[in-house]
Amino acid sequence: MRQLHHTFEISTRGQGLYDFTAEVARWLAASGLRDGLLTLFVRHTSASLIVQENADPDVQGDLERFLARLVPENDPIYRHTLEGPDDMPAHIRAVLTQTQLSIPVNAGRMVLGSWQGIYLCEHRRASHRREVAAHLIGA
Amino acid sequence: MRQLHHTFEISTRGQGLYDFTAEVARWLAASGLRDGLLTLFVRHTSASLIVQENADPDVQGDLERFLARLVPENDPIYRHTLEGPDDMPAHIRAVLTQTQLSIPVNAGRMVLGSWQGIYLCEHRRASHRREVAAHLIGA
Amino acid sequence: MRQLHHTFEISTRGQGLYDFTAEVARWLAASGLRDGLLTLFVRHTSASLIVQENADPDVQGDLERFLARLVPENDPIYRHTLEGPDDMPAHIRAVLTQTQLSIPVNAGRMVLGSWQGIYLCEHRRASHRREVAAHLIGA
Repeated sequence: MRQLHHTFEISTRGQGLYDFTAEVARWLAASGLRDGLLTLFVRHTSASLIVQENADPDVQGDLERFLARLVPENDPIYRHTLEGPDDMPAHIRAVLTQTQLSIPVNAGRMVLGSWQGIYLCEHRRASHRREVAAHLIGA
Repeated sequence: MRQLHHTFEISTRGQGLYDFTAEVARWLAASGLRDGLLTLFVRHTSASLIVQENADPDVQGDLERFLARLVPENDPIYRHTLEGPDDMPAHIRAVLTQTQLSIPVNAGRMVLGSWQGIYLCEHRRASHRREVAAHLIGA
Repeated sequence: MRQLHHTFEISTRGQGLYDFTAEVARWLAASGLRDGLLTLFVRHTSASLIVQENADPDVQGDLERFLARLVPENDPIYRHTLEGPDDMPAHIRAVLTQTQLSIPVNAGRMVLGSWQGIYLCEHRRASHRREVAAHLIGA
């Protein structure tokens, strides 16, 4: 049984989904582990992780529009406003999605379904460099 | 330390929650592992996983009604509409719930609370056969 | 490779976020494990787990107000009302956040970002004693 750590760095240019499935798959292949559990953990509170459809890019646009409407900017209930109108909505959107994902690895591959991609969700307008910590345990 | 993989197949007949706690518990018992971490991963983007109350079935109905209202069909913001009016809401509902669950195993049992059940959430109207990949690591 | 189990007990006094990062860090330090995966699992269906900003307490208040408005009490769609007006909203709020969190451990520390804290979300009004099961696997 072995363990590996890695940090994925993802450059974002505004709100939306960023597919990094291929980067994760490459790291997994390079690890030599065939059987185990892969965990991804986003090190931020205004970005998050999801697994979603990777076929039609409209799915990603629709999801972004839905989240923007569900968690509006300039909502009078917000007191945390010093970091900009998109900051508190970003925290809430992060809470409603995922901070962490664990994916079983079987026969050298993640057990993703045919249409599943791994996405970083950027919830802030400005460009950011986001870190996703990765851990792999297995054999 | 050992690892096991399995795939749970769950037949769904429309939107709602499907309890498969007993199937997971049976697989765990058959594995012989007493101490470890069990991970469930749904291999779809229009179904998801949750842990919820297994005592009063009204909880499941209320949750389904809440999600149906929160994520309406035929919303004018959707562009991904080719696969039917329930498809894009299904993706959003999947994002707002969970793709994956990990549950510690202690003394041969999942550490679920007394009233916790493991549910597949079907977010589409038609019948489907859903796959949940399972991974167990431990001793 | 070793495994450890623990149960964190968190006393809550009404709805809101309860930071227990320091308790988790202390348990991790005492374990002697330097490299592994830490999993937290809440054993209730009306409380949940999130990772959120630990700098400005207004973030926590804003999040609580957002959830209270998104999932109102006394909603006419609820049938599960016997346990009080805050019970069904608590189940829904738990589903929209997380039951479980896994955090990689590297060089003896959780890979949390600078501003990330681990919170129990209490979704009920009354005081409760909540249990979070913890599992650590690693070396």
